[in-house]
Amino acid sequence: MTNQSQSAQAPIMDALLRYREAGRASFHVPGHKNGQLYRQEEIARLLQDVMSIDVTEISGMDDLHHPEDMILEAQKLAADCFGAEESFFLVGGSTAGNLALILTVCSQPGDILLVQRNVHKSVLHGLMLAGARAVFLEPYIDPISQLASAPVDSTIRSALAAYPEAKGVLITVPNYYGMGLDITAIAEICHEAGVPLLVDEAHGAHYGLHPQLPASALASGADGVVQSTHKMLSAMTMGAMLHIQGEWIDRELLRQRLAMLQSSSPSYPIMASLDLARRYVHIHREQAFREGMEAIRVFREGWAGLTRFRLLGPAEVNNTPPIPQLGEASKAEVQESESILDSNPGYSTQDPFKVVICDRYGVWSGYELQERLEQQGCIPEMSTERYVVLLFSLASVKEDAVRLLQALEYLEKESTILLSADVLCEGLHKDNHEVSTWNNLRALNYSQPVQFHLQPPKKDQVETVSLELCDGRVAAEMVIPYPPGIPLLYPGETIQADIVERLMKLQSTGAKCQGVADPSMRTIRVYRDRITSTDA
Amino acid sequence: MTNQSQSAQAPIMDALLRYREAGRASFHVPGHKNGQLYRQEEIARLLQDVMSIDVTEISGMDDLHHPEDMILEAQKLAADCFGAEESFFLVGGSTAGNLALILTVCSQPGDILLVQRNVHKSVLHGLMLAGARAVFLEPYIDPISQLASAPVDSTIRSALAAYPEAKGVLITVPNYYGMGLDITAIAEICHEAGVPLLVDEAHGAHYGLHPQLPASALASGADGVVQSTHKMLSAMTMGAMLHIQGEWIDRELLRQRLAMLQSSSPSYPIMASLDLARRYVHIHREQAFREGMEAIRVFREGWAGLTRFRLLGPAEVNNTPPIPQLGEASKAEVQESESILDSNPGYSTQDPFKVVICDRYGVWSGYELQERLEQQGCIPEMSTERYVVLLFSLASVKEDAVRLLQALEYLEKESTILLSADVLCEGLHKDNHEVSTWNNLRALNYSQPVQFHLQPPKKDQVETVSLELCDGRVAAEMVIPYPPGIPLLYPGETIQADIVERLMKLQSTGAKCQGVADPSMRTIRVYRDRITSTDA
Repeated sequence: MTNQSQSAQAPIMDALLRYREAGRASFHVPGHKNGQLYRQEEIARLLQDVMSIDVTEISGMDDLHHPEDMILEAQKLAADCFGAEESFFLVGGSTAGNLALILTVCSQPGDILLVQRNVHKSVLHGLMLAGARAVFLEPYIDPISQLASAPVDSTIRSALAAYPEAKGVLITVPNYYGMGLDITAIAEICHEAGVPLLVDEAHGAHYGLHPQLPASALASGADGVVQSTHKMLSAMTMGAMLHIQGEWIDRELLRQRLAMLQSSSPSYPIMASLDLARRYVHIHREQAFREGMEAIRVFREGWAGLTRFRLLGPAEVNNTPPIPQLGEASKAEVQESESILDSNPGYSTQDPFKVVICDRYGVWSGYELQERLEQQGCIPEMSTERYVVLLFSLASVKEDAVRLLQALEYLEKESTILLSADVLCEGLHKDNHEVSTWNNLRALNYSQPVQFHLQPPKKDQVETVSLELCDGRVAAEMVIPYPPGIPLLYPGETIQADIVERLMKLQSTGAKCQGVADPSMRTIRVYRDRITSTDA
Repeated sequence: MTNQSQSAQAPIMDALLRYREAGRASFHVPGHKNGQLYRQEEIARLLQDVMSIDVTEISGMDDLHHPEDMILEAQKLAADCFGAEESFFLVGGSTAGNLALILTVCSQPGDILLVQRNVHKSVLHGLMLAGARAVFLEPYIDPISQLASAPVDSTIRSALAAYPEAKGVLITVPNYYGMGLDITAIAEICHEAGVPLLVDEAHGAHYGLHPQLPASALASGADGVVQSTHKMLSAMTMGAMLHIQGEWIDRELLRQRLAMLQSSSPSYPIMASLDLARRYVHIHREQAFREGMEAIRVFREGWAGLTRFRLLGPAEVNNTPPIPQLGEASKAEVQESESILDSNPGYSTQDPFKVVICDRYGVWSGYELQERLEQQGCIPEMSTERYVVLLFSLASVKEDAVRLLQALEYLEKESTILLSADVLCEGLHKDNHEVSTWNNLRALNYSQPVQFHLQPPKKDQVETVSLELCDGRVAAEMVIPYPPGIPLLYPGETIQADIVERLMKLQSTGAKCQGVADPSMRTIRVYRDRITSTDA
């Protein structure tokens, strides 16, 4: 443990300030020469200060890929602050961390990784780069919101029993909506099976730092953890961290992977911002969240007076009858599922900073609600067909909460004029038939291994068909609605009816998709000859 | 071609300024909330302005991985400015561009790429990720400086004839020292052979933009070009561009590769800085370099009065007798080599902004000279055993030149006291025996294909030996002295006597090495059982 005076240090920013104050002449990159070029350019004014510390690996500035000095020191302070044995600063976002972790754990082609189905696309890209095989684990689906959290203990236990040769398990906790679960038992199951637990904790960099926040993945026993420090703490965008503990992960190989995937000219301002983000929570500890938590309290207090909107939270399970959609599940599975609902082990934690709301009547889609909030000066994080995600953080203040409440009150008042009985009825109907992407409760809660690789299908193997005609075909491209960046389909996967419906909905609501050849989403690329095979 | 008013636009920065001025409440990442967290933190003051525009893919902010709006517009302006058909903004530096290009051109494992030996490590990492086979092309070695530039036409022609199945040719022009050659003929040879020419032009983002600068790779016919806009132009560190022209490169696949390798939360300040860097040269054109060129002129004028140091340049070939070190080369090769020296086709261009100097007497190593310059307040870009690289740019001013001249004059004056006849003699001796890393003129000017892959050697296949004992062994790790980041050895390569000598020199002079298990460089990891094999 560091003492108070150590934790107050900011080794990287300190070195940058010393560099700046020394006022020496730059005969090194970057070419803007500490912003000297723009000294009379008003349009670059906001970059002037940051450019004065935008340096490179000159003498005394250490080297991210081989840290020995202030970067090593800053990483050690981060390890202490977040409870890791070793922490690595990332300048390529959690993307770089996920890619590097997977390329480390799956070092041989064909290695099996147990991966929850609803992962960020960077995890799938990691599988592709590694040439690994993924066994997809079905996540727990919250019966009220129809949103997927993560796989429960029993899913992981049974998949590990079926694939004892697996190299590890990778889960995403919390998800983009702030939904999560206690992963202590999962870590134990992994360690009993002799594999590391990797956690994409991109959305939970703040976890474990305040009593009202869920426990961190590291404290719960995870071996490799990726955190987007820029998301829920205060680093600049692309600033993230990779934390390691224990002996399950080959750190030498990990270093090589990070040096391979990240820029050989990493951004010092981003590294300094990681250092400052750590410093802020390290010195203020719980108090760092005082103002943000107060903003949340004010918001929740005001929320009680609103009737039009619904707020996502695990507590709802106890207030509303569950709507299980079990398809062809056996009676035993129905019982198991019901017992899961009783204790709700798949969705037991909610990030208080993630305010996820929807129109109770389903009249406004998430996209429409987002647009209306923006008209009121409140910019949400993202929206889906149903939900809008609004993100508070330790930097939020009471005034933010008041502003959001005023916007919601305005919308609620405006909407009462429009809500005729017919519309309401239609809305409720729509709401009940909402189809979740991940609502795939199947006979087995894990998939067969799916081989990932980098090779795109050859031109003559593939054709383009309109969305209406793709039912039952095998996808030849990845379809990633963004946000939240979770692939709905990836190459080699059979397109089932519910997916077709989902795709058409996304297309008609104008959602953005990455990875597709046709950005308008009217068509999709499928394998020409393969109707049912699932291996790519 | 765009008109003056279009080129003066800065679509990304404009959008960020509008975002800032709108003063709406942030319910989105990043968690610092436009820097709101740090409003009273003096230590973060220099990040305050940039954090006010450090946003994410909220409404109206487009998406780097799927640009449709201002990012697309900014990229189109960049394509116009730099002479590409299509330009891609990179937030992960030229590293991301090189990885993506190689993964696009070598889309099947085992695909052959012709690669010059002295490439940046990101190129080798690209080969590893792609599982490609590299045919290494010997670069032209400047006989005076012993520095490697790039392969000459005849090397590329003969290698393409030997490997007609190759997928492309990748060269690095200019190199870190600003050395280059006219690549027009190389582009023609590639196109005749039906393959694209890829150019790592990381050090030449400014090429072609002023009559005193060499032509750009795009203007010379290259198909895919990576430029570090942060190095020789004025973007923030990690800001780079990938330019494409013609039909040789599969752009759809390239987009997928870029989305795979770069952060899904790219930095807007970095993208804005790319936009501004393009805007600056787009509106000022030649005049953008007026002040920097004037600084260089002043420096060269003052340089004429110095006697202790030597300046790198292709003109030296005509002033000094060449020192060919041809080993076992045949008579025909000696003649060919001599005719090369006559016209000096392998090193015909020098970036005027790269001032590369050495101690004429070899008393001070490059490292020592760098240290002395730093004591005089001049911070060089990097140094090697022999050279110091000092980098001017369009942002340099006359005062920089004067400061550097004063520093050199001081060192020259100081050194006359120290230079006894003995020392001088020793120094000259040392200078003459300088061994270049790449001084491998062999019977063939290209290698056998070397298979790259991601799999690290298994523990029992490898042992650690001290540097003194590694002669003739097969390397099991990559050794990359940094800067300039060119691998001296990679896994599977036999360690020859000259390499051993070089390694020991690097170790004794305290150079930094990436990729090695022992950062002190006293030991090296080699294959246990394989003494001469070169396939990994």
